Amino acid sequence: MAKLRVGILGAAGYTGAELVRLIDMHPELELKVVLGKENAGQRLGQVLPSTEGISGIGDLLVASFEEADAPRLAAELDVAFTALPHGASARLGGALYDAGIQVVDLSADFRLHSQAVYEKWYGPHPRPELLERAVYGQPELHHQELKGARLIAAPGCYPTSAILPLAPLLKAGLIDSAPLIIDGKSGVSGGGRKPSPKFHFPEVSEGLRPYAVGGSHRHTPEMEQELGLVAGHELKVLFTPQLVPMVRGILTTAYAVARSGVTSAQCREAALAFYDSPLLTVLKEGSLPDTLHVRGTGRAHIAYTHDPRTGLVLAMCAIDNLARGASAQAIAALNVARGLPSDLGLPRIAAFP
Amino acid sequence: MAKLRVGILGAAGYTGAELVRLIDMHPELELKVVLGKENAGQRLGQVLPSTEGISGIGDLLVASFEEADAPRLAAELDVAFTALPHGASARLGGALYDAGIQVVDLSADFRLHSQAVYEKWYGPHPRPELLERAVYGQPELHHQELKGARLIAAPGCYPTSAILPLAPLLKAGLIDSAPLIIDGKSGVSGGGRKPSPKFHFPEVSEGLRPYAVGGSHRHTPEMEQELGLVAGHELKVLFTPQLVPMVRGILTTAYAVARSGVTSAQCREAALAFYDSPLLTVLKEGSLPDTLHVRGTGRAHIAYTHDPRTGLVLAMCAIDNLARGASAQAIAALNVARGLPSDLGLPRIAAFP
Amino acid sequence: MAKLRVGILGAAGYTGAELVRLIDMHPELELKVVLGKENAGQRLGQVLPSTEGISGIGDLLVASFEEADAPRLAAELDVAFTALPHGASARLGGALYDAGIQVVDLSADFRLHSQAVYEKWYGPHPRPELLERAVYGQPELHHQELKGARLIAAPGCYPTSAILPLAPLLKAGLIDSAPLIIDGKSGVSGGGRKPSPKFHFPEVSEGLRPYAVGGSHRHTPEMEQELGLVAGHELKVLFTPQLVPMVRGILTTAYAVARSGVTSAQCREAALAFYDSPLLTVLKEGSLPDTLHVRGTGRAHIAYTHDPRTGLVLAMCAIDNLARGASAQAIAALNVARGLPSDLGLPRIAAFP
Amino acid sequence: MAKLRVGILGAAGYTGAELVRLIDMHPELELKVVLGKENAGQRLGQVLPSTEGISGIGDLLVASFEEADAPRLAAELDVAFTALPHGASARLGGALYDAGIQVVDLSADFRLHSQAVYEKWYGPHPRPELLERAVYGQPELHHQELKGARLIAAPGCYPTSAILPLAPLLKAGLIDSAPLIIDGKSGVSGGGRKPSPKFHFPEVSEGLRPYAVGGSHRHTPEMEQELGLVAGHELKVLFTPQLVPMVRGILTTAYAVARSGVTSAQCREAALAFYDSPLLTVLKEGSLPDTLHVRGTGRAHIAYTHDPRTGLVLAMCAIDNLARGASAQAIAALNVARGLPSDLGLPRIAAFP
Repeated sequence: MAKLRVGILGAAGYTGAELVRLIDMHPELELKVVLGKENAGQRLGQVLPSTEGISGIGDLLVASFEEADAPRLAAELDVAFTALPHGASARLGGALYDAGIQVVDLSADFRLHSQAVYEKWYGPHPRPELLERAVYGQPELHHQELKGARLIAAPGCYPTSAILPLAPLLKAGLIDSAPLIIDGKSGVSGGGRKPSPKFHFPEVSEGLRPYAVGGSHRHTPEMEQELGLVAGHELKVLFTPQLVPMVRGILTTAYAVARSGVTSAQCREAALAFYDSPLLTVLKEGSLPDTLHVRGTGRAHIAYTHDPRTGLVLAMCAIDNLARGASAQAIAALNVARGLPSDLGLPRIAAFP
Repeated sequence: MAKLRVGILGAAGYTGAELVRLIDMHPELELKVVLGKENAGQRLGQVLPSTEGISGIGDLLVASFEEADAPRLAAELDVAFTALPHGASARLGGALYDAGIQVVDLSADFRLHSQAVYEKWYGPHPRPELLERAVYGQPELHHQELKGARLIAAPGCYPTSAILPLAPLLKAGLIDSAPLIIDGKSGVSGGGRKPSPKFHFPEVSEGLRPYAVGGSHRHTPEMEQELGLVAGHELKVLFTPQLVPMVRGILTTAYAVARSGVTSAQCREAALAFYDSPLLTVLKEGSLPDTLHVRGTGRAHIAYTHDPRTGLVLAMCAIDNLARGASAQAIAALNVARGLPSDLGLPRIAAFP
Repeated sequence: MAKLRVGILGAAGYTGAELVRLIDMHPELELKVVLGKENAGQRLGQVLPSTEGISGIGDLLVASFEEADAPRLAAELDVAFTALPHGASARLGGALYDAGIQVVDLSADFRLHSQAVYEKWYGPHPRPELLERAVYGQPELHHQELKGARLIAAPGCYPTSAILPLAPLLKAGLIDSAPLIIDGKSGVSGGGRKPSPKFHFPEVSEGLRPYAVGGSHRHTPEMEQELGLVAGHELKVLFTPQLVPMVRGILTTAYAVARSGVTSAQCREAALAFYDSPLLTVLKEGSLPDTLHVRGTGRAHIAYTHDPRTGLVLAMCAIDNLARGASAQAIAALNVARGLPSDLGLPRIAAFP
Repeated sequence: MAKLRVGILGAAGYTGAELVRLIDMHPELELKVVLGKENAGQRLGQVLPSTEGISGIGDLLVASFEEADAPRLAAELDVAFTALPHGASARLGGALYDAGIQVVDLSADFRLHSQAVYEKWYGPHPRPELLERAVYGQPELHHQELKGARLIAAPGCYPTSAILPLAPLLKAGLIDSAPLIIDGKSGVSGGGRKPSPKFHFPEVSEGLRPYAVGGSHRHTPEMEQELGLVAGHELKVLFTPQLVPMVRGILTTAYAVARSGVTSAQCREAALAFYDSPLLTVLKEGSLPDTLHVRGTGRAHIAYTHDPRTGLVLAMCAIDNLARGASAQAIAALNVARGLPSDLGLPRIAAFP
């Protein structure tokens, strides 16, 4: 079988760079086209020095791309990954979709089912009619819907880290869905490649700080949508993101009031029963997640503990924000859409250390 | 006035090293004696290369110390800081106290008022009769009791970061004391100077992990004691510590259910009304704490936000775990005990960056 | 063709862990056996949490191994990687070799051709008669000798970073071989997995320091051997290693007196002419190596500059100490020995960022 | 005696921030005025959150400043520190000097004695006639000239780290002045506060790279000037700077050909004989410099080793680039100019860890 011909729109950003890396290791994907705006005309090796000197990759030229180019690209590409800011991603990704290309979008543009909710958090949606066609690309939760999907919304990084450990508890009815408290901590690559005082090395290296507090982070409605779907009813989360002086990784600790009589072991068993995925490990009792152990992979490590003194459950999850939280999960969703094993071609073992 | 003659028991550890640094800048303190076990016989410059070549400091010899040496030391010292593992600290610090030396203990040995609670979490207490004589060395909360105190228990790092932002809310009745959720994140120096796989650079640098989850961390009873005192009744906390790949700093985010009608501004005003301290800043609205901005100082930065969607209050605090969370706060408590301004001699401005 | 059955002796160390990761991505290798001493009896997932939950890997049991076990292993293994401290590696790797297993040794035990030189730097050699059978596993410099080799000495990390940029200059006669000055800077993973004050996170994170100065580092004779072979005569280097607060990566800057009239462009052209390797990129003019861009790969980035003011050439090289400097290069050497492309199965593109 | 009234021009940058911190600890200096362009009108607490809430500092307003303002400022200030980009620093610092204010300039504008050399490396000098009035503010090398100086050029960071260890060797005639090789490694704060891809956390954190190679770094002529003065004749250096993933600190390793018969001990003794400074420690034999141990202080640690195999001397120095390499040294120079002890008011002991 010929490999799928792949294009990346926005290869110069971090999720784009991660796609370049992962596609190069995938047996069924071949990177043919890299598209961008600011870097158009440059060799990929200039934009991503990690590809410099790699035959067939480092010498790809970044091409500019506008909606009008989509039909022409349809002859060259089977799949396009769009990794652009929201709004632009829907507009340009939408054009590729219209032209018949399978689109996996890494922005927030196709994640929310409700146009109203999207527009409350992100502003006008350029292609609202596509919202109902898009499938939320969580390979574990939406496995069936993903099969054959032609427009896939790769989930957000923080939502992935919150949904994975909480979904089994909600499904099994082990916790109240009274406000869930989701304390997220992310490495700095989550902020993207654009330099800013917030991400300037000297001011990050020994800094640790919350941001977008008080339920103002845009990943809130995505968490509420997906956790609500699992729970079978609407629910609210208070999500607090924090910036941690490391490059990759998200650790999320979520707090919920346990139903009476619930134990740590029950939580763990609920997760084991809920998941059957090569991309997720429910850690053995006594082990706790660490971002170090999932770096560069599509894998998630989750664990639970119940505190009988307070009646609270703590659900924990570690992922790589750029891999399981973005590009590797996008490829996993594509794998499922194409009828391949979800983990095909993805590195399984984190670089350690 | 002659300077106070100071000794440090346990100068080779990180809180000991921080004491050496801070005492050297203090106008009323003079380091005369450094005591230790493992490093006895070495020059301080060998144990702490940051003091190498500094006249009067780097060439101090670390002397061994046993209880029997206490009476002799009474002629040489006015104040002793004890920075040893729990148990040893009470035993040896107790001997210094018996000999008439003012003792500021940086271990957990004199922080808990209840012998039973201490022994549940730490094991047998070597000097339980001293518990009632010790004053918990929070300069803001125990200012009156500290005056003239001869046995001071310097507070723990995580408890400081949790108590400072929550105390005003409890005092003003703005939050329920139903289980308080305290999510703590600490730099690695909090783990001490002893090498271990947990703190090995290659396995920390891109790692982020919880530990001592499920209410099992020993700082839990200290938080419950102090917050309960402020609230006027017993309460429970679920405290979750996490190790962050940075050297110094604690950021704590605490979650509580707000009383009806409470606003972010009210929380902030409660803190402004509660505190009148040169060692603490309630940040202006729109600013959030960052460990970067308090490093090396005795200062705390605190802030609040109320989320009307969920009815939860988020209380945040950033401190330096070794400074405000240990050695600088110990000196501030001594200052108060000696009738000096609490911040005397402490650096006010963090090294930036 | 069936995959080669592979064993690792010393899988719990960092080069062992890197082998586990790389073998898992290699199309012709299959990890069958992990051997160790301290961790014998544990699951690999306990020793390397990055493999936890990975079917067929995380549940491998670490088996103990002594010389007497070698014959039995010969039925189970085609290839063994030995990643033990020097001395032990020769003894146990030698036993595997005797039993007919192809051995790729990652210690220093088989790198030096001269027993006298080895013993001067490392002490008695347990299997000196094997020195002449071993091939130095530099895939570019020893491609021919590697074909069919059954005992391969994977090169050291610093030597790789020094030899790669200097070899073309010596071969082309562009520099004097009067003492070469090799200033090496390594990430902390080069120090291994054993905790020590030197590698304790709080004392590394903002530290930068030389060690083993004055030509006392054991990689000195390895550099002199290989550079001398290329130059065609003996030469001396002054090698200074330095510890840099990062996990992976070596940047080496080497200084040499240029022959009269030499230019930067000539140096670059000499390297382009010397190398024809998928594992090495001579950077374009204006680009300089950065360890960031080769992490986790078998690739080296090299560059040159000539300073006409002083007549000195600066040769620079960036590698990943655990990958190109150890495990990836070991696999590349095995590839060549087995008649496969040197880069088969190795990830080509560094994780960025 | 009243304290000296101090102003800082460029307080928002890193050397400015470090001045704010150090002045606050100095018994004879009082910060009265902060001047800036981009941040004019903001409170200092907004620009430097580390000063937020600190009475008398955090609420200082950043005032705009043009040359015409200088005479008015003369009534308010005794001393001005100028920490602006080169060119601007000479222009505005020159105006302050003309108005009778003592000026300590932290840019490169007054460091070079030769206008021709300055203009070759930096472009036109706005106030060349001031070059001969300025004193190079090395407190050890120019102690006499500094006394009473009214225009002081605070030395550059890399030059300080190179000059301190090499000056005694040149003075004592222990090394050839044939090209000196100076391999410098700096933390990222040396690049300033302006965000840029080069200093973006995710691309620095595991990166290590040379820059401005081939003798093209502007600190080259400053090293040649000062080392030439000590040696008594012109000399050339090849200086190679490298960016290290840490915030503060410079480690410089310098290589020189030793005169026949020279030993490590002789180098060390030459330095001990050359220096009599509270701001510098010649480490004992067996100790090597580490940037960790001088952070935040005005101190330098230096050491030597001679390699008899190659006949080369290695001279090493660790400083804090923002402190000894900029602001603390600027204050030390001011101290000397004012007849105070060079180390007055400077923290002596590095924060450890």
